[in-house]
Amino acid sequence: MPKPSHIADDGTIFMVDVSEKTPTARTARAQARVRLGSEAAEALRNATLVKGDAIAAAQLAGIMAAKQTPSLIPLAHAIPLAKVEVAFSWDGDVLVIDATARTVAQTGVEMEAMVAASISALTIYDMTKAVSKRITIESVRLLQKTGGKSGTFDAAQDDKIGS
Amino acid sequence: MPKPSHIADDGTIFMVDVSEKTPTARTARAQARVRLGSEAAEALRNATLVKGDAIAAAQLAGIMAAKQTPSLIPLAHAIPLAKVEVAFSWDGDVLVIDATARTVAQTGVEMEAMVAASISALTIYDMTKAVSKRITIESVRLLQKTGGKSGTFDAAQDDKIGS
Amino acid sequence: MPKPSHIADDGTIFMVDVSEKTPTARTARAQARVRLGSEAAEALRNATLVKGDAIAAAQLAGIMAAKQTPSLIPLAHAIPLAKVEVAFSWDGDVLVIDATARTVAQTGVEMEAMVAASISALTIYDMTKAVSKRITIESVRLLQKTGGKSGTFDAAQDDKIGS
Amino acid sequence: MPKPSHIADDGTIFMVDVSEKTPTARTARAQARVRLGSEAAEALRNATLVKGDAIAAAQLAGIMAAKQTPSLIPLAHAIPLAKVEVAFSWDGDVLVIDATARTVAQTGVEMEAMVAASISALTIYDMTKAVSKRITIESVRLLQKTGGKSGTFDAAQDDKIGS
Amino acid sequence: MPKPSHIADDGTIFMVDVSEKTPTARTARAQARVRLGSEAAEALRNATLVKGDAIAAAQLAGIMAAKQTPSLIPLAHAIPLAKVEVAFSWDGDVLVIDATARTVAQTGVEMEAMVAASISALTIYDMTKAVSKRITIESVRLLQKTGGKSGTFDAAQDDKIGS
Amino acid sequence: MPKPSHIADDGTIFMVDVSEKTPTARTARAQARVRLGSEAAEALRNATLVKGDAIAAAQLAGIMAAKQTPSLIPLAHAIPLAKVEVAFSWDGDVLVIDATARTVAQTGVEMEAMVAASISALTIYDMTKAVSKRITIESVRLLQKTGGKSGTFDAAQDDKIGS
Repeated sequence: MPKPSHIADDGTIFMVDVSEKTPTARTARAQARVRLGSEAAEALRNATLVKGDAIAAAQLAGIMAAKQTPSLIPLAHAIPLAKVEVAFSWDGDVLVIDATARTVAQTGVEMEAMVAASISALTIYDMTKAVSKRITIESVRLLQKTGGKSGTFDAAQDDKIGS
Repeated sequence: MPKPSHIADDGTIFMVDVSEKTPTARTARAQARVRLGSEAAEALRNATLVKGDAIAAAQLAGIMAAKQTPSLIPLAHAIPLAKVEVAFSWDGDVLVIDATARTVAQTGVEMEAMVAASISALTIYDMTKAVSKRITIESVRLLQKTGGKSGTFDAAQDDKIGS
Repeated sequence: MPKPSHIADDGTIFMVDVSEKTPTARTARAQARVRLGSEAAEALRNATLVKGDAIAAAQLAGIMAAKQTPSLIPLAHAIPLAKVEVAFSWDGDVLVIDATARTVAQTGVEMEAMVAASISALTIYDMTKAVSKRITIESVRLLQKTGGKSGTFDAAQDDKIGS
Repeated sequence: MPKPSHIADDGTIFMVDVSEKTPTARTARAQARVRLGSEAAEALRNATLVKGDAIAAAQLAGIMAAKQTPSLIPLAHAIPLAKVEVAFSWDGDVLVIDATARTVAQTGVEMEAMVAASISALTIYDMTKAVSKRITIESVRLLQKTGGKSGTFDAAQDDKIGS
Repeated sequence: MPKPSHIADDGTIFMVDVSEKTPTARTARAQARVRLGSEAAEALRNATLVKGDAIAAAQLAGIMAAKQTPSLIPLAHAIPLAKVEVAFSWDGDVLVIDATARTVAQTGVEMEAMVAASISALTIYDMTKAVSKRITIESVRLLQKTGGKSGTFDAAQDDKIGS
Repeated sequence: MPKPSHIADDGTIFMVDVSEKTPTARTARAQARVRLGSEAAEALRNATLVKGDAIAAAQLAGIMAAKQTPSLIPLAHAIPLAKVEVAFSWDGDVLVIDATARTVAQTGVEMEAMVAASISALTIYDMTKAVSKRITIESVRLLQKTGGKSGTFDAAQDDKIGS
């Protein structure tokens, strides 16, 4: 059975040594879904009808947070982010946030994508919480990754497609 | 109908002016649920059986991130955090993370609690993603808040109990 | 003659002690002018015609940088920013950036406004530098301040209007 | 006509993907000019006559800010800064700040030089604003860059010397 | 017997709640001693004979780090730093660094002074480590504190002078 | 005689240019010793008997601070940290903190190890200072380094073992 990362057999934590690994191209795509409810969804749609700066703010917050990943996630390595992308779409009263990160590095870029999606979602929450206290980030999860020892993963597939 | 915060009528964004408001005591409690699945849940339980440093790492990451809220959430004010608390419990294969924040400030402390819960959850994700790529942060939401103009909110109640 | 702040008579630097001062309401308004030239100005106008996310990005960068003032300006105090506002207008081929900051604090909020205007201007520069290398931030200066021992200053007036 | 960076055709913003590019040596030199006026220039000269710690502070602030460029400029990539240098000279009552940055990277180092010059200038402003409120950062601009697809640029030349 | 801060009876950690406490004036003075050895001490003295920018850099690093205390020390509260001061003197081949911090807050300012002294010492180490690898920060300790429930402490006295 | 780094002959400071250097594997091990005294040592041992979260907090604080080295030490380069490790042991009433850092970079990793050890020590200090004000970080020093032009250094050896 695979083991958790960063946790030694005696339960102490450690940062995985990546100095021997060769940098390879890697991507990750994560998704956050913010269930706004009808009232807050309508309020957000109205407020961004003319000018979508609020959505741009959430996008930017996600991109900037991705760059802060190593200072937020204790055991994450700093990796050179080649690209971060955050896109928004509506699924009824749910705002869907897709974050993609890309790197050429010794370790994966999943955390950067997950952080971008999470902070974008929290920024939307911050702007809509005055309308409803029941807004929920109903999921943050990995959709896809490529590269690295564990190969490609695609959440839409039943099974992992190994390298 | 209440309006989103930080968004003007023309769609541009702004930071709400709090200079005229009097600081009052406020608390917020947020919860993140990390659905690990049976394999990853068992792996995390085993890995933290002897020494729970991995859980302590997630707790600390949440506390430290709460203090970074104004640099993560673009339009959030810096408020003096009097306390941040992050606690963990298991609900089957779901790790439940409760984050509580407290302040005496001109604006609420919901975002600090939401950020703490989110980053704690992402830290757990970071440590378990080697076991399963299907781990999902299945919700991040506000459980309770007290103080401020909008008064007490309790997610367990049907209706908001106003001040 | 007034003396520079933060510099002792022997030339060493120090952080001014504000512990004895009473917090009072203060505002500051700073302006940066980015001379784009006709080509870059047209390119930026075209690029933001449909959707002004680039301008929103510059606005947000300014607001977020204002909150980082004490970590950027070595001897600046951390003050509770009640509001930061960044607005844009065109003066021919010059993009004019107005940043306003507000606080209730023991020391002034000029640096926060100046930092906001500067970083917004640099963000515009970052997006347009591919069009022309001759884009110049042609001025960053204080337009107005209110509050504090030195009273109100208005750059549009000939003389300082003391308290 | 060249297009602005980071802005898509539909007006949304994005971080340029640099994962396919090969790292090459690049330099950039930026200059900020701080017009102090006679009174503040004399005050700063006097204050730093014996010991120039205030100038050293502005230099250091510029160097340290250059390292923070990716967290200040939303769409800037983190690049490995090989060197940052900030130098000061007087041109009458104008303090001239020259910032040079050097990297071996997939993208240019102009923003790091521009940020260094700007924050050094703002630090000088912070120390002299008590003497005069009319101190102006009268320009921040690129003097020279080398390396990268667009080749060498020298502001002192009439035309760009392309690769 | 007094108990450690931030550690609950069950060994879990927590951030102490200060929301009920009244802000009071507090100071702390910490000292770091950097034993350079004769060679490195002479090299540093020579290098800073004409212009002491290296010492100014260490001073500034200490002041700026003090402002980062809550992001460095996990359970520290962010408090409004009214002043930070870092001074240097020689005791033979030992560079003595005195850091003083002052606040009006609900909790003490010892950590800010300790962080300032430590980071100033590490900056000196960074500049001299090429001369000798045996340079040691031979002590970092609290010299004095005033204010707060535990009252005045003076390391030069045999006993604590309580309030 | 070797010269201090980062200081020019005229006393001004500068960031060493590493753009021409080839990245090589490097390690550094630093040690901090925290003299707690009998009372505080006993209190810390008791408080961490059941659950060692306080020690885990100090470990994590060290690892996270190592990643912040370039924003703390003014002239330090940002290098890709491959690993940081912080371990604790008791030597009577002294808590011994060993920090190891590893990189493949153009410059050494000593500062990252020294910063990790220092901030871990300060975190211990923060948790025990309520028990005794006389707790002292009695030394922070380099134990060993490998790689780079100056080769291997081992503090336990009489002489440096050059490359």
